[in-house]
Amino acid sequence: MSLLVVGSIAIDTIRTPDGKEHAEVLGGSCTYFSYCASFFTTVQLVSVVGEDFGAQHIDLLKSRSIDLSGLVIKEGGATFRWAGTYAEDMNDRTTDDLQFGVLAEFDPELPEAYRSAPCVFLACAQPELQLKVMDQMAGDPLVVCDTIEFYIENNRDALGEVFRRSEGVIINDAEVRMLTGKSNLVKASDDLLAAGPKFAVIKKGEHGGLLATQEGLFPFPAYPLREVADPTGAGDSFAGGFMGHLSRTGNASVDSLRQAVVYGTVMASFTCGGISLSRLSSLTSEEVLARAEHFSAMLRTPG
Amino acid sequence: MSLLVVGSIAIDTIRTPDGKEHAEVLGGSCTYFSYCASFFTTVQLVSVVGEDFGAQHIDLLKSRSIDLSGLVIKEGGATFRWAGTYAEDMNDRTTDDLQFGVLAEFDPELPEAYRSAPCVFLACAQPELQLKVMDQMAGDPLVVCDTIEFYIENNRDALGEVFRRSEGVIINDAEVRMLTGKSNLVKASDDLLAAGPKFAVIKKGEHGGLLATQEGLFPFPAYPLREVADPTGAGDSFAGGFMGHLSRTGNASVDSLRQAVVYGTVMASFTCGGISLSRLSSLTSEEVLARAEHFSAMLRTPG
Repeated sequence: MSLLVVGSIAIDTIRTPDGKEHAEVLGGSCTYFSYCASFFTTVQLVSVVGEDFGAQHIDLLKSRSIDLSGLVIKEGGATFRWAGTYAEDMNDRTTDDLQFGVLAEFDPELPEAYRSAPCVFLACAQPELQLKVMDQMAGDPLVVCDTIEFYIENNRDALGEVFRRSEGVIINDAEVRMLTGKSNLVKASDDLLAAGPKFAVIKKGEHGGLLATQEGLFPFPAYPLREVADPTGAGDSFAGGFMGHLSRTGNASVDSLRQAVVYGTVMASFTCGGISLSRLSSLTSEEVLARAEHFSAMLRTPG
Repeated sequence: MSLLVVGSIAIDTIRTPDGKEHAEVLGGSCTYFSYCASFFTTVQLVSVVGEDFGAQHIDLLKSRSIDLSGLVIKEGGATFRWAGTYAEDMNDRTTDDLQFGVLAEFDPELPEAYRSAPCVFLACAQPELQLKVMDQMAGDPLVVCDTIEFYIENNRDALGEVFRRSEGVIINDAEVRMLTGKSNLVKASDDLLAAGPKFAVIKKGEHGGLLATQEGLFPFPAYPLREVADPTGAGDSFAGGFMGHLSRTGNASVDSLRQAVVYGTVMASFTCGGISLSRLSSLTSEEVLARAEHFSAMLRTPG
């Protein structure tokens, strides 16, 4: 089973509370997602970068056998850039700069070999664009989508259509509150499921999250970390581990979703362990399995 | 096994975001704690109220077979009163009024029959007073304590002594951050355990919490609630369910602590279901067991 992901690749500049600036490091939703998902399944990536995109980044993705035939390298173009500063507690961050570059005209054309992927993750993008990707798919893939507050505010109709056509949604707490107007996350998840998707994962960062399914609610904590070096990409890493597991099992049963939450949590925790993809780049499958076991054991009550 | 609790009994006035004021309702740490613990063990209560304390409140506590021989009713005195307003999302609250009344001169004298209790919970009180309670105990009881930011700021030496002499601490995230100066809760829990206690429960309200033991960390979510009528006393209810289970099992092994977290979480969730003790007052043991089962099943990953 292959897993198709459409999203951004970025060059990030990250300012951490220790006063350090980590300039021009690899980032982007598609990057974190595909790297993390590659521990579980074959990933087919669709994104765009500029001519300035370093060959070492391409090599890093290739080292995980990620299919890059859907990666467009725009001649003369500049890769999407984001710069941000984290607050003291590493939970809040402010965006210092945003340069869309080649991402501004991103109009994904799926390679023929991608169109039959049974599993699709639509990382955060303009909803109209997410719909165009769905239109290009053959068959009836399992589609899961993400979004951000900007599109909830500005592209609500198209976003509604994306949700209606998706099997699942991965979204954070602030976004789902804005979307539904409900501050209680249980009520918000009711509304979300009424809007189309069969399941939703509401992420709460360091507080874990809530898996909402038609069979019930499953709250989960985050993996406790003694050091958080850089939470950039943690949400996309969660989605990568989560979708990687769904793609591997080929189904979105409640058991599969719940195990997917474990892998999502674990991948997000590894991402937080280093700047950019630095912790991920040395990660082994054995470490992933060991931490998933540890996390499951933490949750399994003895009674 | 009996469980001794020393703490406050209050008359609360609670203003909820729907604009309603719930005037002169039953509250206080000792009240919520002992009511919740009574589902698991025999509770011996030590507290003080004024002459104005309603007989119906006494009857409610007696209905749970709580031993009230340690309850002092001060002639001519007024019961401790607290008034507060909850913010829209029910997480933040402001204190509108505080009248210590008879609590200001609370100097607990334990009835002889209480002094051999094998299990003690020192609800939030002046640390010097918590130490005086410990001094009155015979034998080597399992002591767990709570505190608040005020005492962390103003009574740090005595509080340190309380911690050194306690087996466990139940505290919230803001308090442990203030106490240790560490914003990362894993590091904060390291410091807390280094200060004496063998275990700590760091509560995060709607986000659950973290059980820190010498054998490892166990993060846990809260029980997801569709309606939160009134979170007053949720932390004390957690402590009641938690300590009730420890008292019943007679030990603080990791397995016992982890199961205690389940009961603590469940009792807190019931408390949130009604104003004051209104949900608790109709609660049955069967409902407690059913929700504990449900919560454990939510956490048990299938993998």
